Amino acid sequence: MTFNNTLKNITTYEAGKPIELVVREFGIDAADIVKLASNENPKGCSPKVQEAVKRMVSKMALYPDDSMFALKKALASRFNVQERELIIGAGSDQVIEFLIHAKANENSKVLMSAVTFAMYEIYARHVGATIIRTPSYEHRFDEFYAAYKAHAPEIIFICTPNNPTGDAVDAQELYRFLEQIDSNTLVVIDGAYMEYAAYKDAAKAIAPKELIERFDNVIYLGTFSKAYGLGGMRVGYGIASESVIEALYKLRPPFNITTLSLEAATVALADEAFVLESVQECFEQMQHFETFAAKQGISVIPSYTNFVTLQLHNEQKSSDLAFALLKKGIIVRDLSGYGLNAIRVTVGTPEQNRHFFEQFTAVL
Amino acid sequence: MTFNNTLKNITTYEAGKPIELVVREFGIDAADIVKLASNENPKGCSPKVQEAVKRMVSKMALYPDDSMFALKKALASRFNVQERELIIGAGSDQVIEFLIHAKANENSKVLMSAVTFAMYEIYARHVGATIIRTPSYEHRFDEFYAAYKAHAPEIIFICTPNNPTGDAVDAQELYRFLEQIDSNTLVVIDGAYMEYAAYKDAAKAIAPKELIERFDNVIYLGTFSKAYGLGGMRVGYGIASESVIEALYKLRPPFNITTLSLEAATVALADEAFVLESVQECFEQMQHFETFAAKQGISVIPSYTNFVTLQLHNEQKSSDLAFALLKKGIIVRDLSGYGLNAIRVTVGTPEQNRHFFEQFTAVL
Repeated sequence: MTFNNTLKNITTYEAGKPIELVVREFGIDAADIVKLASNENPKGCSPKVQEAVKRMVSKMALYPDDSMFALKKALASRFNVQERELIIGAGSDQVIEFLIHAKANENSKVLMSAVTFAMYEIYARHVGATIIRTPSYEHRFDEFYAAYKAHAPEIIFICTPNNPTGDAVDAQELYRFLEQIDSNTLVVIDGAYMEYAAYKDAAKAIAPKELIERFDNVIYLGTFSKAYGLGGMRVGYGIASESVIEALYKLRPPFNITTLSLEAATVALADEAFVLESVQECFEQMQHFETFAAKQGISVIPSYTNFVTLQLHNEQKSSDLAFALLKKGIIVRDLSGYGLNAIRVTVGTPEQNRHFFEQFTAVL
Repeated sequence: MTFNNTLKNITTYEAGKPIELVVREFGIDAADIVKLASNENPKGCSPKVQEAVKRMVSKMALYPDDSMFALKKALASRFNVQERELIIGAGSDQVIEFLIHAKANENSKVLMSAVTFAMYEIYARHVGATIIRTPSYEHRFDEFYAAYKAHAPEIIFICTPNNPTGDAVDAQELYRFLEQIDSNTLVVIDGAYMEYAAYKDAAKAIAPKELIERFDNVIYLGTFSKAYGLGGMRVGYGIASESVIEALYKLRPPFNITTLSLEAATVALADEAFVLESVQECFEQMQHFETFAAKQGISVIPSYTNFVTLQLHNEQKSSDLAFALLKKGIIVRDLSGYGLNAIRVTVGTPEQNRHFFEQFTAVL
């Protein structure tokens, strides 16, 4: 059977290996495996969320509230925006999928950093769009502007803080860049890790309300998968001007968020203390990574997220190192597929991190 | 901002109103509302599933197993197919989305019954395809074949039992039809309500294994949303030859099923007794609908599902009737948007059904 030509150029996303897979493949006891590959919250999620979800299990037969009344109201109130300026996706991933399908096609160009979240390219390939990348792995606005002028892309992706490198742009620099972009180019500000960046450095904090008030060609993305500890529940959101949201809504499948995920996200949003603790503990633990890397003579990209990216020496291949760690039951992300000789390691619990330091030293 | 032209022709799906909305709009106490609009399992889901999900709430922070190891293994075993012949979607809806995006584009035609599941058309419009419909609301294979010869569609949708009418095709007639279709046309057999049809009449039962062994251009769709009582958890699946599944996999977003949904579906599949009870009780209760309709002189389409479609007299407009019921706290589906003067009513619990009969009589 023949399929659309666009399928030929699609690559699939390589997810962080789940613990169960390492158990099966390497015969390691599940209790001895430490997964630091997917930037999940090592504290888990709020106990209040767990209790709320338990109370809802009798409702699993009922389709979700497709208007997402409670969650939209909570998000609108949190960000001081209107509900019609919000769209909720199965992870912010799905909002990326919507916006690419809404705005791009096989004649389109999509601009992004040399090294950034893999799904931008994957979804852009779904519609046959051409990928343009800036030269540097950091987000350098001079490079973005030059590429914008040279290629006139339909969509520009700014991932701040950036995944998988951890660096973040200054809000004021971003605003100055946005002022130079024409109103028919959609600019995506992916703030999946923004809770971490905003805590560490106020200059990196992007406020969605200010963003969409100043620019009606911009969409801000957020997620419950990181600081809120709900990676398994698939809830993210987009905040943009009403006209952008209206277009994306046309591509939203009904019931795209499960009944339990809606409840989990709504309750999670109300437990700010849990998020603050998660972020504080993350940066406390991150210091140990920095100290450890300095001792090993390994360079760390300054991180505004819940992970650190260790740039290895030339003689040490990141793919070999990641595999050696895997055999010891430590799952990290090898970044060789992104063109970096580096590994990305989630900042875990104190115990997980100690275990990582020990095993890393052992396999070096 | 301009968007892709295809967006202009997209209509959105009108979901059955959730109970919370009726509470807010009509000020009716939630306890007095009976929702018979979305063909949810009135028994809820298996208590075993509820217990299993409760045990998993501490895992909500962890991304789902993207290989879906346990659920795939269970489905492969249930249907006696290979895991590479399976794809799992966020509802069978998402598998429909994948296959339309894989096979159709703005030059394509997509063939379906005059009255059938609304999402076929909605997803086909996402890619700008042309919709071809047979004249009858029943699935008549002579009409399907004539339309196939006249239009050479890329995709044919056979919904059996059909939603929202409840009728089902004979398996042998379907096979004879499929033998006449060329191998580059993708035929979708949507069996969302198959557990009900197979119980009521073995001649309507489609076995996915036989189907895909005989036809490598056919995909069978199933769901956990109906007989398995997991409408809120968004899990469905497609079964097809490896080459079709491989193409669809290219369009599957990572982590498309939540951690709790994977667990719920896997446990639900093992509790066959719950499904059997649900289906038996449904048909016991359906007799009361048939008796009631006969008394009222209203015609019922013989149903192989967990809902009944009541065809109203000309002087009674289905939209008026549905609204009158809504004000009484009874949510049903008005089918005037499908070109039928009919309402679709989920077969509920004995108590819900009695309440429906009373209120229906009151508003007639």
